[in-house]
Amino acid sequence: MNINKLEKLIKLLRYYILVSTSKAGSGHPTSSLSAAELMGVLMFGGFFRFDFKNKENPFNDRLIFSKGHASPLYYSLFTVANAITENELMTLRKFGSRLEGHPTMEFPFTEVPTGSLGQGLSAGLGMALVSKFLNKTNFKTFVLLGDSETAEGSVWEAMQTASFYKLDNLIAILDVNRLGQSRQTMLGHDVLNYKKKAEAFDWEAIVIDGNSIKEVVNAYEKALKVKGKPVMIIAKTLKGKGISFLENKENWHGKALGEKDLNLALEELGKVDVKLRGKVKLPRKVVLKKQPVTSNLKPVTYSFGETIATRKAYGNALVRIFPKYPEMVVMDGETSNSTYAEFFAKAYPAHYFEMFIAEQNMAGVAFGLSRQGKIPFISTFAAFFSRAFDQIRMAQYADTNIKFCGSHAGVSIGEDGASQMGLEDIGMFRSLLGSVVLYPSDGVSTDKLTEEAAKHKGVVYIRTTRKETPILYKANEKFPIGGSKTLRESKSDKVTVIGAGITLHEALSAYEELRAKGIFIRVIDLYSISPLDNKTLKKAAKETEAIITVEDHHIAGGLGEAVAAALSGSGKPVYIMAVTKMPHSGKPDELLEYEGISAPAIVKQVKKVIA
Amino acid sequence: MNINKLEKLIKLLRYYILVSTSKAGSGHPTSSLSAAELMGVLMFGGFFRFDFKNKENPFNDRLIFSKGHASPLYYSLFTVANAITENELMTLRKFGSRLEGHPTMEFPFTEVPTGSLGQGLSAGLGMALVSKFLNKTNFKTFVLLGDSETAEGSVWEAMQTASFYKLDNLIAILDVNRLGQSRQTMLGHDVLNYKKKAEAFDWEAIVIDGNSIKEVVNAYEKALKVKGKPVMIIAKTLKGKGISFLENKENWHGKALGEKDLNLALEELGKVDVKLRGKVKLPRKVVLKKQPVTSNLKPVTYSFGETIATRKAYGNALVRIFPKYPEMVVMDGETSNSTYAEFFAKAYPAHYFEMFIAEQNMAGVAFGLSRQGKIPFISTFAAFFSRAFDQIRMAQYADTNIKFCGSHAGVSIGEDGASQMGLEDIGMFRSLLGSVVLYPSDGVSTDKLTEEAAKHKGVVYIRTTRKETPILYKANEKFPIGGSKTLRESKSDKVTVIGAGITLHEALSAYEELRAKGIFIRVIDLYSISPLDNKTLKKAAKETEAIITVEDHHIAGGLGEAVAAALSGSGKPVYIMAVTKMPHSGKPDELLEYEGISAPAIVKQVKKVIA
Repeated sequence: MNINKLEKLIKLLRYYILVSTSKAGSGHPTSSLSAAELMGVLMFGGFFRFDFKNKENPFNDRLIFSKGHASPLYYSLFTVANAITENELMTLRKFGSRLEGHPTMEFPFTEVPTGSLGQGLSAGLGMALVSKFLNKTNFKTFVLLGDSETAEGSVWEAMQTASFYKLDNLIAILDVNRLGQSRQTMLGHDVLNYKKKAEAFDWEAIVIDGNSIKEVVNAYEKALKVKGKPVMIIAKTLKGKGISFLENKENWHGKALGEKDLNLALEELGKVDVKLRGKVKLPRKVVLKKQPVTSNLKPVTYSFGETIATRKAYGNALVRIFPKYPEMVVMDGETSNSTYAEFFAKAYPAHYFEMFIAEQNMAGVAFGLSRQGKIPFISTFAAFFSRAFDQIRMAQYADTNIKFCGSHAGVSIGEDGASQMGLEDIGMFRSLLGSVVLYPSDGVSTDKLTEEAAKHKGVVYIRTTRKETPILYKANEKFPIGGSKTLRESKSDKVTVIGAGITLHEALSAYEELRAKGIFIRVIDLYSISPLDNKTLKKAAKETEAIITVEDHHIAGGLGEAVAAALSGSGKPVYIMAVTKMPHSGKPDELLEYEGISAPAIVKQVKKVIA
Repeated sequence: MNINKLEKLIKLLRYYILVSTSKAGSGHPTSSLSAAELMGVLMFGGFFRFDFKNKENPFNDRLIFSKGHASPLYYSLFTVANAITENELMTLRKFGSRLEGHPTMEFPFTEVPTGSLGQGLSAGLGMALVSKFLNKTNFKTFVLLGDSETAEGSVWEAMQTASFYKLDNLIAILDVNRLGQSRQTMLGHDVLNYKKKAEAFDWEAIVIDGNSIKEVVNAYEKALKVKGKPVMIIAKTLKGKGISFLENKENWHGKALGEKDLNLALEELGKVDVKLRGKVKLPRKVVLKKQPVTSNLKPVTYSFGETIATRKAYGNALVRIFPKYPEMVVMDGETSNSTYAEFFAKAYPAHYFEMFIAEQNMAGVAFGLSRQGKIPFISTFAAFFSRAFDQIRMAQYADTNIKFCGSHAGVSIGEDGASQMGLEDIGMFRSLLGSVVLYPSDGVSTDKLTEEAAKHKGVVYIRTTRKETPILYKANEKFPIGGSKTLRESKSDKVTVIGAGITLHEALSAYEELRAKGIFIRVIDLYSISPLDNKTLKKAAKETEAIITVEDHHIAGGLGEAVAAALSGSGKPVYIMAVTKMPHSGKPDELLEYEGISAPAIVKQVKKVIA
């Protein structure tokens, strides 16, 4: 270990942090300066192992900046590692640059995009699971955390889960620089309090002066030897470290230095060698054995006359399709006997991880798994995915491949009442750029759509129903994403009724009743709510007088609004039937009736429309 | 203390738990049985003080069942306290009953509805703040927590914040019954591990056998004497306690006993006295001094020619309106120098609470404050409210009066990049039943709408913008909820362009450019996105050829879809301009241009529509 060279490299990091943010005219230099030793020693002190010529090497260590606003330090590290040029560093925060305000997937070395605090440790946990249990690649995952973000509960979810799985390949580095955005953090510089908390969560805690190169070196040496539990290096640092008028001072968060201040700062920093570059250790291995793939799956075997809850069909589908998609990893938020993820847990226990009642962490772990080439399928009650909306929101920026399955959708769950009813989930998942939202109505379509989800690269949401429903489709029917099924159609169709999930069955009952009275309606199963089957919708708008949508969900962001927006140019009205009254406990049928989304309500609405 | 009577009352609780769930045919008897001593002793052992004849008494202690699925125990407590009848208890989970599957506001003694786990402690924290700092009513708040729900990070957010505020009037009772829904919890019966965690979070921890009446009595005696910090009673219990074939057994979660099992259980329980009723201590006082109210506020003073960011106008408005709404309490997620809640913090420090970067807890605390008659205004970046969506979702069932203000909406925030951009927030808040979504465009409307929010009883979301924008309205203009402003209108209007916030200013620029070319457009400021001003929208659809909506938000759930759904019967097309490309860092104007929601993009779209 050449401490003298490390010193010079770290000084160069400080120089780049200051210069690049001043050039950008914004950014977070002081939050970057505090962690310069922590990251400089990690990268150039022989601890972090990474092959810059092959960033896809599955044995590479992983580095996540959970405090994403320290991106000037992050990009400076890669500059000093000679992975990007100084010229590129100076494009920081400019439109078109790969170096955005917070690390994004545009930057080639970003493991997961950060910027919404408290998410990085969960992603690191996902990677650590891959390294320890799934690929057994034995790399280390390092996560740089800010002290402010430990106020986020998601950090403690990850802490608890990481020690439950004894992830001794996960190393968190806590940069305790005392100052948040607008004031001192709750714990200030009380590093012993952080230590107490980390140890209570069954982590090994190493407390150091994080601005002392020697102490940082010792900490990594110690951390890499710990067995049987994750490690947190708790580093007391100074925000703005190295520049006296920034050091430990309030009101400098998120501010770049103007020209005068920059010159003062650089003068204080002293001479740096901008040609100096640091060396990063290579990983131990490069080749990973591929998982065997079975291309022929067992067929779907549901048949007419059977009934099965789509949530149960989801569990069966996971088991059926795994041999073809061996990168699948299934997780659940301690509801696996309700979502039926338990079928998979029993069939393939090595590929199932219980995530307990911590949905934010579950989504964050899925992030990390996905970034390592896995296909995570995660499930809980549809309502409880709202807990992880910020993580789900970030997933759209992460080039992720996560499959969410929300069971217990809508008022049709019955007696458990409103708190357990997913009534905003379609809107939530539709609101992501490029997301796929699937809502099967029977066992066959659930099975096929679960496989479509596995096949599709991206974020997919599958909405399942608690109640049993009859099989509607032949076992060999196909269900492409973006499609729909027209189940009832004739030349005499007056109105089109569109349903999905539980309401499709209500629509089919309404069809029977209306047909008996000589009124014909078209019935469409809109199993793909995003993307929409615009062609079929437009055809229906052309051939019938009006469209009625029926959904077990609130209006805003739901199936009805999606259809109304898609058909706004058609000249045909779209009548939205949805959950508009405060739901209560009761039998499923009582609640469908109460909310006006039952078969009788549809019959009434059709009659009103054609009157 | 008559231990013998307590024993009989607790036995009666067990009887009611078993009988009411079997009668309902569903529910959670075993999760209720474990906590019978904990709750029976609290209520009837002289610890809990409550005036059943005056449940609004501000000096009443408060009891929150964070483990809401233990509702059979909850309702049984009130039955044994003679506050509801045994007959009503037997309506549990039936449609129309006040006794829903999880406690809701239908039940007159529910403090906050629960059922989504991990939220109750934050609500209790809000009540404890009222008791200790705001009303100084000095009541105690008791929160029953399940062990499973400690996996939720929101619990640790609340733990950390409660000790930061030294809330010694907050007592959490942790029912460690070992078993979750589908398996053992992470920590099982390791009560000492829970103790270590609670102490690390600076709580007083008292470990007991929670099924021993004597130990429970001692615990409450001790807990009520603790000063300077919150207390957690960590109680080792058995799930299904009291009935040998349920006790500590897996696969009994959420299952009511069938007739045969019920008879066996009742036989084992032995004779109970269903006439027995318990006494609850009365609170110490009944009358609270009212806050003085100033009905005349200082006027709004912005004038034409000025510019101000609406986020700053929000901060100013809070300060201006407080004298008329002295129940206001302002909180922020450690972004107050960005949201400008700091203006209020400086003006009225006794009515401001810093909530640090823990949005879930902040929303939960607002819950508790609101249920105590306060008007919480809470703020953070619009994007980060997604973190609290589950709490926000529950707010719709809580008869709450919370005002959310999300700043930094949309791509127009610029360089900080996508992670900081609120692009799903309109959809999220619209998706709640009965919510109000306001999106002001200038200082005057921001100020007036902030006051409208204070006046309105219910959930209100105010969306503010980072950039400065010019004043558009006279200071005496009125902005009723559900209204809109038609800013440009003529008989020659070809098309209507609807904007709000930043895009309204783009629409006004587009108007100028088009007018110079002899093309007239109507421009509407849709400051109330929910509820919508349907009258004005329909008029515009009638009088112009098409509607163009422009928003700095994703399509799904946004302003455009809301308008499209509202106008679906009009026959006029609605063209939605919104954020549809992955946003990046850049200057605000570059990003508006890139996403096609700038003035030039509007001009182009108008020309295309009328071509």
